[in-house]
Formats: sequence, structure tokens, C-alpha cells
Amino acid sequence: MPLDNLASMMLPAIEEELKLAILPAKNTKDVGIYEMLAYHMGWEDVLNPKGGNKGKRVRPLLVTLCNKSAGGIWQDSLPAAAAVELLHNFSLIHDDIEDNSILRRGKPTLWNKWNIPLAINAGDAMFTLAHLCILRLKNYSSLETSLAAANLLHKACLHLTIGQHMDITFEQETTPSVDLYWSMIEGKTASLLAVCSELGALIANTDQEIQLAYRNFGYSLGLAFQVQDDLLGIWGDTVQTGKSNENDLVTRKKTFPILYGLSLKGNFAERWFNGQITPEEVKEISNQLESEGAREYTQEICNQLTQEALISLESASPKGEASQALKLLANRLLRREF
Amino acid sequence: MPLDNLASMMLPAIEEELKLAILPAKNTKDVGIYEMLAYHMGWEDVLNPKGGNKGKRVRPLLVTLCNKSAGGIWQDSLPAAAAVELLHNFSLIHDDIEDNSILRRGKPTLWNKWNIPLAINAGDAMFTLAHLCILRLKNYSSLETSLAAANLLHKACLHLTIGQHMDITFEQETTPSVDLYWSMIEGKTASLLAVCSELGALIANTDQEIQLAYRNFGYSLGLAFQVQDDLLGIWGDTVQTGKSNENDLVTRKKTFPILYGLSLKGNFAERWFNGQITPEEVKEISNQLESEGAREYTQEICNQLTQEALISLESASPKGEASQALKLLANRLLRREF
Repeated sequence: MPLDNLASMMLPAIEEELKLAILPAKNTKDVGIYEMLAYHMGWEDVLNPKGGNKGKRVRPLLVTLCNKSAGGIWQDSLPAAAAVELLHNFSLIHDDIEDNSILRRGKPTLWNKWNIPLAINAGDAMFTLAHLCILRLKNYSSLETSLAAANLLHKACLHLTIGQHMDITFEQETTPSVDLYWSMIEGKTASLLAVCSELGALIANTDQEIQLAYRNFGYSLGLAFQVQDDLLGIWGDTVQTGKSNENDLVTRKKTFPILYGLSLKGNFAERWFNGQITPEEVKEISNQLESEGAREYTQEICNQLTQEALISLESASPKGEASQALKLLANRLLRREF
Repeated sequence: MPLDNLASMMLPAIEEELKLAILPAKNTKDVGIYEMLAYHMGWEDVLNPKGGNKGKRVRPLLVTLCNKSAGGIWQDSLPAAAAVELLHNFSLIHDDIEDNSILRRGKPTLWNKWNIPLAINAGDAMFTLAHLCILRLKNYSSLETSLAAANLLHKACLHLTIGQHMDITFEQETTPSVDLYWSMIEGKTASLLAVCSELGALIANTDQEIQLAYRNFGYSLGLAFQVQDDLLGIWGDTVQTGKSNENDLVTRKKTFPILYGLSLKGNFAERWFNGQITPEEVKEISNQLESEGAREYTQEICNQLTQEALISLESASPKGEASQALKLLANRLLRREF
């Protein structure tokens, strides 16, 4: 399988690049901040080097695969790959504080293990390291490409913060519009995947049209991923059976199927506005929402976005086994098999 | 006076550059984050455009003055000047959360006026805008200079976060060493002033030796400024008379004179370890600390650092009225007259 072959080659190189990238935080009289960063990245568990708590490094893999499929030498894109992963992890550190989340990948979150002031600051350090990291591109690429890459990364950061602002205020609105939902997930999810694929193509020195096609691939993939996530948040196996208290109906998250259901103003909407849904009601109310067509419609939107992603990818004329690997990655991501 | 002449020319241009720099946060469906940034920058008060609550923009002025005195066209350094001011303000937003400060420049802090999640996120946006802003240098300078400038800025950010980490942990130690104190204020204060003067010289295309001399100027000035701040935190007029409850002896901040006093293990140290100092005791205990030589020693160190700053500046052979202005700025800063 091309994805497994390439991933088994690329992922260790990405991990090395990441370790190199956080080293500047170590060369000081105080190593406390370095320890926090290493912990968050999943490297503290020396007894279990294969431990699956590092996250899946999907974003950096998207950079290197897009780079290779666009004709680049994928190793040249490693600083960009590591930078997007650091950026993603920075946003997780701050999101966990903002959302009051106590666990991440089965371990206490950074603020929970240390404290909020130190965790805000460690997030800032991770953010800085992402920016320092992408400038290392200049060792492999032209100065122009390196600057353009840094600019793309900063813009994606800005979209992330705008998306997060909307997300925080979104949860306070009674009936946010589906329009607002799309704007929010554009910033929160799609902008980062878009910049991954765009950076891969940029560093491969493709022309602007191809870069845009790669960007659109990542963008649609990001939206599809989020909508799929929303679907699983209500009808996924674990939240239907094992962890009903984590079902989005119980936590009252304003996800796509729920906003769609509310817009129908039917029985589901009536029950929703009637107050808190208990874990015991999950089965019945999710069935109600499904009978009103929300599940089917959500799946349809997700399939449509996935198709758009693959059409964008095709239009970029990706080459070789990396091209196959990207299609597999897209499909596995959506089936949560990666 | 060269400083007033140059400042009256440069400060409005800096303000325009800053307003330009935060615009990318406005071009979206949601302007909430832009409003927060504008509020923090002191621009919300349309009825009082001269309102003195914007902060003094000392750091960007240091960039443009150093640039001019090093033979540059100061307007070319505006993106760097704005970037350091944005970076400074980003750190204030997060510091205010980390330190639980409710007021800044006489107004509610950002987290206090909105909430902690939105303020963490707005700080991240300000941080991002600083990075986007410095890349605008490429419109005036070579790509090489622009990349080098971005790299310097990111490194200063990393020092800021390391300094802040030490500051937070510092306050939890019973008797931190003076050594640790220097490391902390290097990161918290000196690194940012150092990068201001270094960026000015870099953008003026001076050689590395001159850049280093400018850097050392900003660095020593930053240390001197902090030590002076520590001195005023105990013996300054307002904290001796008007606001004794804000005296560093009462808030138990571990500043230079206090650490020096503790190291003497005399009567002051004994009283300090004996528990909380009340506002009513400020006069007596500050006199005790002074009689043990802490005030004189602190002033001596501050004078020495100021001399070092001015010697570094001289060794950079600064030119014209900007050179005079820098010396005046250094002196006024230390006398708190700027």
C-alpha cells in the first residue's frame, strides 16, 4: 500500500524534525518550559516509545505527501511539515484551557498537569517554535519560497484565531446560523489543512494554479473531516453506546446535524429547546433527528465535500505513489481509520 | 530637542503602521476579535483621540531611531517597529491573564472586560499579526534582511516566553538567587529592547559588528530600565505615599533590591521571612532596607548598566540628530520622563 510505505518513511523523519524544532526551548538555564512542550508532544513516556499518545501527525504527513506528489523532494518540506504540527499543538494547548478540557489523548492536559499561567505561556512558546521552524526552509528552498511559506503559515494562524473566537461566541448563541457554522469551521479546521497541502505544493515550486488546486483539496478535506466528526459525535458507536454522556446531544454542542435539525423546527427542535438532554435519551432523540433527515443530509454534505476534495486533487495532476497515498489518506481520514 | 522633533514625526507614522497591521483581523464575517485588539491598543476611545492610554510606543521608537542613527531610511523600518509593539502588547494581554491583573493603563484588562478564553485567543491573534507585520519588510528591504528580521523577532519571542516561565516559577520560590533574577529579566525585558535596536541596525544594512553594538545598547538599556523599575517599586514617590499597598514590599515581589537585602541575611531579611508586610510598615521597612545599602547598591547597578548601554551605543558610531535623540531617550526612560 503506497500510504503505509510512504508514511513509514516520512513519519520518523517528521518526528526527528519536530524534536529538532523544540530544542531551542531547551538551551537555557531553565528547562521547565521544554519539559512541558515535550510532554504535550507525547515524548515524555520513555518507557513506551511506541505509545500511541502522540497524535497521528496527519497534518505534517499531508505536507510531505502533497510535496512529493507535486514533484518535490519531500525532505525539503520537513520544516514546513513540523511547523504545521507545532501550530496545531499550540492551538490544542490554548483550546484546552479555553474549553476547560482536563484530558487530551488520555492524559491530563497541560494546564491541568501544571497550571493555567504556565500553560498559556508554554502554548506561546510552541507557537513561536512553529514560526522559527518554518524559517528553516531557507536551508533547502529559495528565500522567496521561504518567505511566502512563512506568510501562508501566519495567515492560517490568523484564521485559526478568528475561527476560535467565533467558536467561543457561537456556543453562547441560542440558534446560530448554518452560515456562521461554515465560517467557524473554515477557520478552526479547514484553514490549517488547506495550508498543509498548499505549503507542500509551494515548496515543490509548482505554479500558482497548482498550488491553489492543492489548497482547495486540503480545504474541502478539512470541511469534510469536520462534518464527519459532527456526524460521529451523535451517531458514532462510542457516543451511542459506551460514552453517551459525551454525545453532542448531551453536551449541547452546536454541530452541523443539530443546526440542521433546529432549522427544520420540527419535533427535534422542540425537544432541544425544551432543555438538557440526558444520556438515557440519546438513543430516542438521535433517532428522532435521523427520522427528520439530518443524518442522511449530513452524510450527503460530507460525501459532496469529499468529492470536491478529490476533484481538486485530480485537477492538480498529482504524480506517483504519493498521489495514491493522498487519496487513501483522504478516505481513511473520513472513515477514521488513520 | 532632537528627540521631540523626531518623535513627533515618527510616532504618528508608527501609529498608522500599527493600524494597518491589525486590519487583517477585521476583514472577516466576525469583527469581535478586531474590536478586542483595537481596545487593547488604546484605539477604542474615539471621543478622546489624544487619550494617553495607548502606552508610550517606546519600543517602536527605538527601532526607527536606531535605524535612522545607523544611516537607514527610518520609514523602511516601520514594519519592524510595528511588529515589536504588537509583540509587546501580545505579551501584556497574556501576562495580565497569568498575573490576574484587572487594570492596565487605567482601564479593565482584556480578560476582565471580555473573558479569559476570548482574551487568550485575542492575544494569539495579536501575536500572529506581529509575525505577519514583520514580513511586510520585504516591500522595502531585501528578502535576506526580511528573513533575518523575522528570525530575530521569533527568537526574541522565545526569550520572552522563557523569561515569563521563570517569572511565574520564580514567585513560588522562597529565596531565588540573584543569578536567576538576571536570567529572568534578560528574557522578560532586555531581549525585547535588544531586538528593537538590533532590528533598526539590521534594516539599515550595517555590518554585523555594528548590529551587535546596537543590540548590546538595547540589551543593557533593558536591564537598566528593569532595575530602575525595581528601585521605584520600593522607594518611588507613589508607592511610598499614595499607593503603599502597591509597594513591592507589600506585594512581596522578588525584585533586585529585595533579593539583595535577603542575601545580606540582616534585619531586613529577618523581617521579610517573618511574614506579610502591611502598607503601614512600608516606610520603616524600606528605611531598614536602605540602611543596609540596598538602595545605593541598586542605583549603582542601574548607573553601571546605563553607562554600558551608552558605551555600546558610542561603539556603534551612531550619526546625526537620531544619535542625540537615542541618548536623550535612554536618559528620559530611566528618569521615567518619557
